[in-house]
Amino acid sequence: MTVYMREMTWPEFAARKDDIIIIPVGSTEQHAQHLPLCTDAVIAERFAAALAKEVHGVVMPTLCYGYKSKPLSGGGPLFPGTIDLNGETVIRLAYDVLMELVRDGFHKILFMNAHFENEAFLVEAMDLVNRDTKGFATIVETNWWDPMPPDVIDRVFDEVPFPGWAFEHAAVTETSLMLYFAPELCHMDRLVDIKNAEPLPYFRYPLYKTDVPECGGLASAKSSSAERGKIIVDSVIPEVVKICKKEFAPKH
Amino acid sequence: MTVYMREMTWPEFAARKDDIIIIPVGSTEQHAQHLPLCTDAVIAERFAAALAKEVHGVVMPTLCYGYKSKPLSGGGPLFPGTIDLNGETVIRLAYDVLMELVRDGFHKILFMNAHFENEAFLVEAMDLVNRDTKGFATIVETNWWDPMPPDVIDRVFDEVPFPGWAFEHAAVTETSLMLYFAPELCHMDRLVDIKNAEPLPYFRYPLYKTDVPECGGLASAKSSSAERGKIIVDSVIPEVVKICKKEFAPKH
Amino acid sequence: MTVYMREMTWPEFAARKDDIIIIPVGSTEQHAQHLPLCTDAVIAERFAAALAKEVHGVVMPTLCYGYKSKPLSGGGPLFPGTIDLNGETVIRLAYDVLMELVRDGFHKILFMNAHFENEAFLVEAMDLVNRDTKGFATIVETNWWDPMPPDVIDRVFDEVPFPGWAFEHAAVTETSLMLYFAPELCHMDRLVDIKNAEPLPYFRYPLYKTDVPECGGLASAKSSSAERGKIIVDSVIPEVVKICKKEFAPKH
Amino acid sequence: MTVYMREMTWPEFAARKDDIIIIPVGSTEQHAQHLPLCTDAVIAERFAAALAKEVHGVVMPTLCYGYKSKPLSGGGPLFPGTIDLNGETVIRLAYDVLMELVRDGFHKILFMNAHFENEAFLVEAMDLVNRDTKGFATIVETNWWDPMPPDVIDRVFDEVPFPGWAFEHAAVTETSLMLYFAPELCHMDRLVDIKNAEPLPYFRYPLYKTDVPECGGLASAKSSSAERGKIIVDSVIPEVVKICKKEFAPKH
Amino acid sequence: MTVYMREMTWPEFAARKDDIIIIPVGSTEQHAQHLPLCTDAVIAERFAAALAKEVHGVVMPTLCYGYKSKPLSGGGPLFPGTIDLNGETVIRLAYDVLMELVRDGFHKILFMNAHFENEAFLVEAMDLVNRDTKGFATIVETNWWDPMPPDVIDRVFDEVPFPGWAFEHAAVTETSLMLYFAPELCHMDRLVDIKNAEPLPYFRYPLYKTDVPECGGLASAKSSSAERGKIIVDSVIPEVVKICKKEFAPKH
Amino acid sequence: MTVYMREMTWPEFAARKDDIIIIPVGSTEQHAQHLPLCTDAVIAERFAAALAKEVHGVVMPTLCYGYKSKPLSGGGPLFPGTIDLNGETVIRLAYDVLMELVRDGFHKILFMNAHFENEAFLVEAMDLVNRDTKGFATIVETNWWDPMPPDVIDRVFDEVPFPGWAFEHAAVTETSLMLYFAPELCHMDRLVDIKNAEPLPYFRYPLYKTDVPECGGLASAKSSSAERGKIIVDSVIPEVVKICKKEFAPKH
Repeated sequence: MTVYMREMTWPEFAARKDDIIIIPVGSTEQHAQHLPLCTDAVIAERFAAALAKEVHGVVMPTLCYGYKSKPLSGGGPLFPGTIDLNGETVIRLAYDVLMELVRDGFHKILFMNAHFENEAFLVEAMDLVNRDTKGFATIVETNWWDPMPPDVIDRVFDEVPFPGWAFEHAAVTETSLMLYFAPELCHMDRLVDIKNAEPLPYFRYPLYKTDVPECGGLASAKSSSAERGKIIVDSVIPEVVKICKKEFAPKH
Repeated sequence: MTVYMREMTWPEFAARKDDIIIIPVGSTEQHAQHLPLCTDAVIAERFAAALAKEVHGVVMPTLCYGYKSKPLSGGGPLFPGTIDLNGETVIRLAYDVLMELVRDGFHKILFMNAHFENEAFLVEAMDLVNRDTKGFATIVETNWWDPMPPDVIDRVFDEVPFPGWAFEHAAVTETSLMLYFAPELCHMDRLVDIKNAEPLPYFRYPLYKTDVPECGGLASAKSSSAERGKIIVDSVIPEVVKICKKEFAPKH
Repeated sequence: MTVYMREMTWPEFAARKDDIIIIPVGSTEQHAQHLPLCTDAVIAERFAAALAKEVHGVVMPTLCYGYKSKPLSGGGPLFPGTIDLNGETVIRLAYDVLMELVRDGFHKILFMNAHFENEAFLVEAMDLVNRDTKGFATIVETNWWDPMPPDVIDRVFDEVPFPGWAFEHAAVTETSLMLYFAPELCHMDRLVDIKNAEPLPYFRYPLYKTDVPECGGLASAKSSSAERGKIIVDSVIPEVVKICKKEFAPKH
Repeated sequence: MTVYMREMTWPEFAARKDDIIIIPVGSTEQHAQHLPLCTDAVIAERFAAALAKEVHGVVMPTLCYGYKSKPLSGGGPLFPGTIDLNGETVIRLAYDVLMELVRDGFHKILFMNAHFENEAFLVEAMDLVNRDTKGFATIVETNWWDPMPPDVIDRVFDEVPFPGWAFEHAAVTETSLMLYFAPELCHMDRLVDIKNAEPLPYFRYPLYKTDVPECGGLASAKSSSAERGKIIVDSVIPEVVKICKKEFAPKH
Repeated sequence: MTVYMREMTWPEFAARKDDIIIIPVGSTEQHAQHLPLCTDAVIAERFAAALAKEVHGVVMPTLCYGYKSKPLSGGGPLFPGTIDLNGETVIRLAYDVLMELVRDGFHKILFMNAHFENEAFLVEAMDLVNRDTKGFATIVETNWWDPMPPDVIDRVFDEVPFPGWAFEHAAVTETSLMLYFAPELCHMDRLVDIKNAEPLPYFRYPLYKTDVPECGGLASAKSSSAERGKIIVDSVIPEVVKICKKEFAPKH
Repeated sequence: MTVYMREMTWPEFAARKDDIIIIPVGSTEQHAQHLPLCTDAVIAERFAAALAKEVHGVVMPTLCYGYKSKPLSGGGPLFPGTIDLNGETVIRLAYDVLMELVRDGFHKILFMNAHFENEAFLVEAMDLVNRDTKGFATIVETNWWDPMPPDVIDRVFDEVPFPGWAFEHAAVTETSLMLYFAPELCHMDRLVDIKNAEPLPYFRYPLYKTDVPECGGLASAKSSSAERGKIIVDSVIPEVVKICKKEFAPKH
């Protein structure tokens, strides 16, 4: 039996009203020379599918376009192939999808986000839906990095130091996840080994080409491997299962 | 070489500035008992891919959620699994994606739409982008039914009469296309043979359950076959290629 | 007793809560060399008045400005005198008018539309009002061409062939209706006899001057006559009366 | 030759690019027991036509629906027949109409407003259009009370005292204007003689039925006459002509 | 005990649910050569505080940015230091603040406005909140000039004639109020003595530098004094107290 | 000479076109039992003033209302006194203020933010202004925690362990800053000593009262002192000065 809503007929989906509906949220965004533009979308969808298998959930069609890529967390908008939605668009898109689910009686919904910049706008949509539906549904937003147990960092960064989450764009964790999930889309031969970008404690506009290394990555992806990707998935999924158990239990 | 932008790295996509960028637009919508919720999305994406092969185009990630399903062209919103976006959301989503392409210098863009109800809102976005960018890009919206040569109807409806396009929802053409594109997602054994819905020369709210046959289809899908799906694809694609040749030639 | 709300005092209007409230929707749009810019507004208002007489309805002030004129259904925006509203504006305008009626307890409302391009945006407003008022009112949108019995085409197009509805802009049907409703505004001496425009199975931006015949019409208006206008009105009104009887009967 | 754009063909209108385009703005609003709901729309349109004759102007279709009626200037929204647009809707509607004129090269535009509550929202639209078109057109908003020479008050209020402009709703000036412009729509036999409403130096919500005299008027309309209406028109039009001469002269 | 919400802890504020919550609304706007940019904000906040003391009210943080300054009531946008919000922004800002109060159960709310141009947009927000909360709270908007007893004008304008409220921008009343409230921010030595601006019975765009006297004031501020400021405050506050007593009494 | 724009006349402000304009952004939000609702606004404004003194900058009126308080970074919306703006409102407010500055020729602008939740929406506004003004101005957003040198944490948390930034709501850093900036608004006698809240790697709606300790704080504020507040200010300001020197130097 498929976990993907898209492959279901409507009676099959209608039968799942009390199950957890998982909405993967990714982006269409440059991921350096070696990873494809769908990197965030693939990672979101595959984490969603892995979770769905554990909690008897349903995976909705992935939101493939996301909020604006920032230079120091996603490489920024100056690369062709980065397709950025405005904040209001992301809010409305997420709002409409949530409202449709709630109108049909679904009451356990989880956003599985793989593009950090989406977060504030997804949560705004959740807040608005919650108000407009008087809290009918329990709605959770999470991702694959926040629930990660702390020791996983050490296990994944056993060869190179962890550069901080902001720079994990097209770097060791994302590359490892893609090598695990979709090796056929990875071009490790094109990997450009770069010095990690320098963190900036502020945002500044206009953006400059020089804000981001020319290749598009923010930190070295050397030492990436499918095994390390598997370590991440295998350790994150149980944590998200715990979240589901806690939050989607009968209401307070 | 892939036609899918999602599988490309950003330098691969950046190299395609003068090629036709195709945006498939579908929906997540009930398609009776025998077709999956992704029917429109699959059809849009597969037509886009077939076109891309002919015109050396690039297929962007499919817009999987579309404008509201109408009872007498899509079965309406009263079935779980139909996820309807508001009109403003569709306009903004299409606007943002178009603007991002234009900002990066892409100037040949085509929406391949497979959900009729999207049309007015996609065209509104095209108009707004055209104004705001002073006509920089040529932007086309089409679908798989309007460019269809008239004789194809006769060839596809050789067993049952053509009920009119409005009722071709989960009926012979869509079912045949899905049998051709994705037979593994079709459940012909669940096909409910219904009398065609009665056309109404008006819109009325509220909607009633009785507006649409209980199964969700609007006309019988009997006599559908992969062969008929292939007839449609093989006859529509050359027509859309002609449109591309005419409209994406050097500007007037 | 007038059918026009505008000519009523508030107590007269307040007394009509259980009657059908008809909102004519037109446009301000070029209609070739021989018809005035108010063509759609006049036709909408006069059909509304004719209907009101049959069903004891009330005709609200006509929405004289409508959605964007399209080259191949209305001649397009490149002619001075075509005043196009954005999609969001049409939605909000229709929404506000409907909401005000519903707030005052009116529960039978009908849009009589005479400008095809308005349709999707009027229906969007109806959907939003229906949701926000939990289906309090029955709201119908129709026009003068969809309910037309099929034989009327033959009777009206007895001299020239029917070019299809899309091209019936400033052509035989609209010109005949204006000759019937408002002959003093028709300039048959200025009529330019043109070859019908060629239908295009797609939308394309930017628009070009050459998309539309220079005079502004899309098909020949030759053979138009007040008699043919009367045929249309006399056959359409009874059909819309039937719609009213069916839809504004006590609720399901 | 007509002054009404609606009665013109597009070439007739196109020939008027350097003339003053006048947009009447009214409302659909209760006007006590003796005046029709179109009172503001009729007054706006007739002042516009009188002005057009003097300045060789063109009168566009009247905006018949306006901003919200206030209890102490328009009687408020609690009477059926008062159809109130939201502020954003009025802004967008006025914005779109202005933008379409500017796009077509018209550069002298005047709003003739007859519903006080519209003013702030029309001016907001003017400001936005001015910014977005870099001041291409000169746009004026005026009405029939502000340019009135001070002695007219004395001549019109020779029998009853002037209650202040806020209360001149369905009172002496509006009733006199309607008796002059459209006596067939006035029902002087139904006139309810009321004590003037009491001015309030504040706005308060919610509104109460008791905020406004039961009949809907805010001040007595006794002593109204067509002659007094003519006095107003004959003295206001020359003042607005002066405004036109001053503001639509070649730019500073 | 402070009247300022900003200085309270949340339990202190929570204890005030049945008290009047006063929201001062000002602007950041040029006030000629002798008054600071915060003039309207200071006046709004100080009137609010004086009122709060009388009615045991609470003063919320002042809205320091307001709607667009108009040339003939505020000097207009052509002076650096005038920071104008768009109409929709003011509506949304006021809407959100009101909704948050209502959600927490506060039901007596008063806007104390000191920038005339804000009025229409504040009242629009009040109307929308009233609809969306079904009239839960009584919400009042007032200012310091409308409730002023008529004799105060004579007492304040004992040396120079009253130029009318529109021109009382950086003139005698505002300057006197600032001399009373915040003399340390007044620069009477820089006062430019100007001829009063000429009133215009219309709005016109574009704005010209010459619309407003070069110094930024619209009427002479000569004869301003702290004593006159005190006269205004001492006479206005009791009037607003009366409004509060009347409107915030148990509901009708 | 004041650093506060509000205290300047317009010619004084106009003379500062090439200086850095600093916009403090705070919130009106519960800050436990011992800190006032203006905590974030005071901290933002005082950091802005300290910075202005170093860089010859100008401090604009503080944006006192901010984006929604989140349970695990601000205590959440369930406490009276927390006044939350919607995301779109914050974007529009920041957008309008920035646009007004840019229109007047100011080209060095810095948001000093003291309420974490504002960040994504301020940056969205910056992005939109940057696009709409083609990068005319350099616009920076920063705060007082991101530029803090790492050793300051150790110096401030010398008695209690650092709970992580998310929980530093009404805790040691904010309390110390308020003791330094505005001791008269601190009520250390009411301080409730709580166990630190437990971090959650996700967002969930609806919110529950139990999400946040009853007092409103998220971590213990014990060991707070004015001295520690001074340490923070003295170490952060030089870092922000460095940012200004780097980013507001002549453009790249």
